[in-house]
Amino acid sequence: MSDKPTQTFVLKLRDASSGITEVPGFAAAGFSCGIRGKDPTRLDTAVVYSKLPCAAAGTFTTNDVKAAHVRLDSERVAKGGVFHAIVANSGNANAFTGEQGKLDSAEMGAILARELGVPEDSVLTASTGRIGKVLPMELLRKGIPAGVKKLASTPEAGHLAAKAIMTTDTFAKTATASFTCVGKTIVISGMAKGAGMIEPNMATMLAFLGTNAKLTAPELKKLLKASVLESFNHISVDGDQSTNDTAILLANGESGVDFKTLSNTWVNGEKCLTTFARALEAVCKALAAMMVQDGEMITRVVTVQVDGAKSKTAAEKVARSIGNSMLVKSAWYGGDPNWGRIMDAAGYANVGLDDGKLDLFYNDTPVVLKSTPLFENEKKWHDIVANREFTVRLNLNMGKASYTLLANDLTEGYVNFNKGE
Amino acid sequence: MSDKPTQTFVLKLRDASSGITEVPGFAAAGFSCGIRGKDPTRLDTAVVYSKLPCAAAGTFTTNDVKAAHVRLDSERVAKGGVFHAIVANSGNANAFTGEQGKLDSAEMGAILARELGVPEDSVLTASTGRIGKVLPMELLRKGIPAGVKKLASTPEAGHLAAKAIMTTDTFAKTATASFTCVGKTIVISGMAKGAGMIEPNMATMLAFLGTNAKLTAPELKKLLKASVLESFNHISVDGDQSTNDTAILLANGESGVDFKTLSNTWVNGEKCLTTFARALEAVCKALAAMMVQDGEMITRVVTVQVDGAKSKTAAEKVARSIGNSMLVKSAWYGGDPNWGRIMDAAGYANVGLDDGKLDLFYNDTPVVLKSTPLFENEKKWHDIVANREFTVRLNLNMGKASYTLLANDLTEGYVNFNKGE
Repeated sequence: MSDKPTQTFVLKLRDASSGITEVPGFAAAGFSCGIRGKDPTRLDTAVVYSKLPCAAAGTFTTNDVKAAHVRLDSERVAKGGVFHAIVANSGNANAFTGEQGKLDSAEMGAILARELGVPEDSVLTASTGRIGKVLPMELLRKGIPAGVKKLASTPEAGHLAAKAIMTTDTFAKTATASFTCVGKTIVISGMAKGAGMIEPNMATMLAFLGTNAKLTAPELKKLLKASVLESFNHISVDGDQSTNDTAILLANGESGVDFKTLSNTWVNGEKCLTTFARALEAVCKALAAMMVQDGEMITRVVTVQVDGAKSKTAAEKVARSIGNSMLVKSAWYGGDPNWGRIMDAAGYANVGLDDGKLDLFYNDTPVVLKSTPLFENEKKWHDIVANREFTVRLNLNMGKASYTLLANDLTEGYVNFNKGE
Repeated sequence: MSDKPTQTFVLKLRDASSGITEVPGFAAAGFSCGIRGKDPTRLDTAVVYSKLPCAAAGTFTTNDVKAAHVRLDSERVAKGGVFHAIVANSGNANAFTGEQGKLDSAEMGAILARELGVPEDSVLTASTGRIGKVLPMELLRKGIPAGVKKLASTPEAGHLAAKAIMTTDTFAKTATASFTCVGKTIVISGMAKGAGMIEPNMATMLAFLGTNAKLTAPELKKLLKASVLESFNHISVDGDQSTNDTAILLANGESGVDFKTLSNTWVNGEKCLTTFARALEAVCKALAAMMVQDGEMITRVVTVQVDGAKSKTAAEKVARSIGNSMLVKSAWYGGDPNWGRIMDAAGYANVGLDDGKLDLFYNDTPVVLKSTPLFENEKKWHDIVANREFTVRLNLNMGKASYTLLANDLTEGYVNFNKGE
C-alpha cells in the first residue's frame, strides 16, 4: 500500500500489455508440445529468455507437498548466480511424482539450456495442471527444441507465452509498469496464470516477471517478497493452496540503472527506488486481481476489508474466514445480502471480537452499526450485492489494524467444473 | 473411543427411537407458532419437560458471535441449580439481535416457566434459523401456552418435538441407548438438528438429551464434554461454525441410580459408569452421523481418517484441511478419485508432513504407498468413490496420533440451496 504518489508510473493491463516481452532484452515463446492429449494444438509450454544474464528472486508455495519444480527452483534461486531462462508447462503439475518428477523437472531445464547454450543451473522450470501424473517427457524432448525456434521479443510472442501457461484461465494475464529514472525507461512486466486452487501464500498461480533494472538477487528478493505479500497473498478463490505456486522475478540490468542509482535519484520528490517498489507492487496486484476476476465460474468479485482489528493477523483471520465461507460465498452468488452469515464467519475466526460493537458496510452503505442492523437500507443492500463487484467492510472497533482480501463467490458452475469425471 | 465392550447397551436410531420421551419422566411437544410466515402449519417450536427436577450440563458454540440463547443458557447452566424444561424454536436464530434478542430469549423461557409453574431459571431456551432478525414474540406469546397443552410422554410427542427443531434437515434425528444397572433400566436419549453451517466445536446444531440417571451437574458436565468431543466435534459439512450450537443434557434421577452406584457396580466385568459413558457417546455419535448423512444436498458421506501424525492436533488439522477443501469435496461429488487434491489439502494444513512418505487408502485399497501412486488400482479407486459412503485414510508415517472426521461432498445443490433469494 502506498502513500500519495508523486512520481507516477504507467500501468498497462491485459491486452494492452504483452507481458514479459515488454521488458527490453527479454524474448518469449508459447507453443504446444501436445501435453493435453485431447487437444494437441492447445498451447502448453512457455519459454522466457534473456540473452543478458539475470539476477533472480522467487517466492514459492508454503504447502508441505511441493511440486518438483518448486524444489528445483528454490534451490537454484537460493544458490544465486546467473539466470537466463524459464520453461513452464501447463496440463500437468509434475507434483507428487517422486524421484521421477525431480529428474523430469531437471531434464526440462536441461533441454532448454542445451538449446539456448546457457548453463543448466541458469534455467528455472515450472509446471501447472493435474497433480500425480509424471510428465510426458518424450513430448517435451521433441517439443521444447522446436518451440525455442519461436523465441521472439514481439508483443505476439509475449501474448502466446502468457496463453501457454493457462489452465482453466479464460484470459491471458499480463501487466506492465514503466517509469523514467536518469533518462532511462525502467520496465517491470510479467504474466501469470491463476483460476482455481487459489489461496494465501500464493495461489495455483505461476507468475513470471522481468525488469531491465540492474538489481542484485538480495535486492530483488526483498522487493519481490514485499510485493507478493501485498498482492498474491491477498486473494482467495476457494481456500485451496496449491503445490505449485511460484513467482519469479528476473532482472537483466539492460537499463544499467542499479540499486544505488534508484536509491539516490529523486524525481518530483519521490525516490526512484520507491517508484520501482510501487510499480512492482502494482504489476503484482494487477495480476492477482485478474486471477480473482477469472476465478473458476465465478460471478462476483468481492473486496473483504476488515478494519479496527487488534492486529493485522487478526484482521486477516477474520477476512479469510469471511472470504472462504461456503455459506457466505453461496449467498454472494445468489445476490443475497445475508449479512448474518458474514457475522457468523467473522465470529468463528475466533479472534475474540466483541459482537456488540461491529459495523458492517456494503460499499458505503451501512448494514450494521454497533451491531444493530439498519433494515431501512435493505433495498440498497440488495442493489449493491447484485453487482459483479462490491466491497464488504467490517469494522471490529477494537484496534487500528486492517486487512483487505480479494475474494469471489461460490457457484454451482464451480462445483460442476471441479467435480471431475 | 472405547475398548472391547463387555456389558452392552441397546442403541436405537431414527424412527426406532422417539428421542427424549423414551426417558422415563420426560414429556415433549412439537407444535407451530407460525414463525415461518410462508408455511404457518409447519412445526417450529419444541418443548421438553421433566416434572422431576433435573441437573443440567451444556456445551455451546465457541463462535465469538453468540446467539442470545447461548448466553442465557450458559449462564444458567454455569450457575447450576434445578432445571425442568427447554423451549426451542426453529425458523429464526435470534442471533445478532442485540439487547432485544436477550430480552426475547428470556421471555420465551419465562412464558414456558409460567405455563409449567416452574421457576424461570429452571428453563433453558434455544433458537435456530436465519441470523439477524428479532423473534416474532407476539406469535410465541400465543403459541407456547397453546403448545404446552400438547406435552405428552408418548413416542409421537417425542417425534413431533424432534421434527419441530428441524430447519433444512430432511429427517428428524433421534437416538436412544439403554442398559441395566442394579436392576434398573438406565436410558439416555435425545434429539438433534443439523444440516448446514456444520463445523467443529459443534455445528449449526441443537441437541437435547435426557437421562434418568441421578447425576449432579459437575458429573454430567464431564460426561457430556467427553462425548461431545468425540462426536459433534468430529464432523464437518461445510466448515461454517454456527452462532447457535448447543447441546444440553438433563438428568432427572428417576431411576435413583446415582454416580456412586454407577461407579461401584460392575456388570459382566464393566463398570456401569463406563457403560453410561459409552452409551452417551454412542447416542451423540449417532446423532452427529445423522447430521452429516443429512448435510444439505449432499450425495456422499466420507470418513476422513488421518493416522501416523505427531499429535492429535496435527492429525485433526490435516483431516479438516481435507474434509473442508472445496476442490476435494467437488471431486467427491463427481465420483472422481482425484487423490492429488487430497495430498494438496494435506500439505496446506502445514503440519510439517514429509511428502515422501505418505500412504493413502480408499477403504482398504492402496492409492498411494510411500508417496508412490498405485495406478494398477485405478479401477478399484473409481468403484469405491462411486459409493455413497467410503473412507479416505491417510497415514503420515510420522507418529502415532490419529483423528477421524466425518465429512461429505460439496454439490451444485448445496450452492443452489444456500444462494438465497
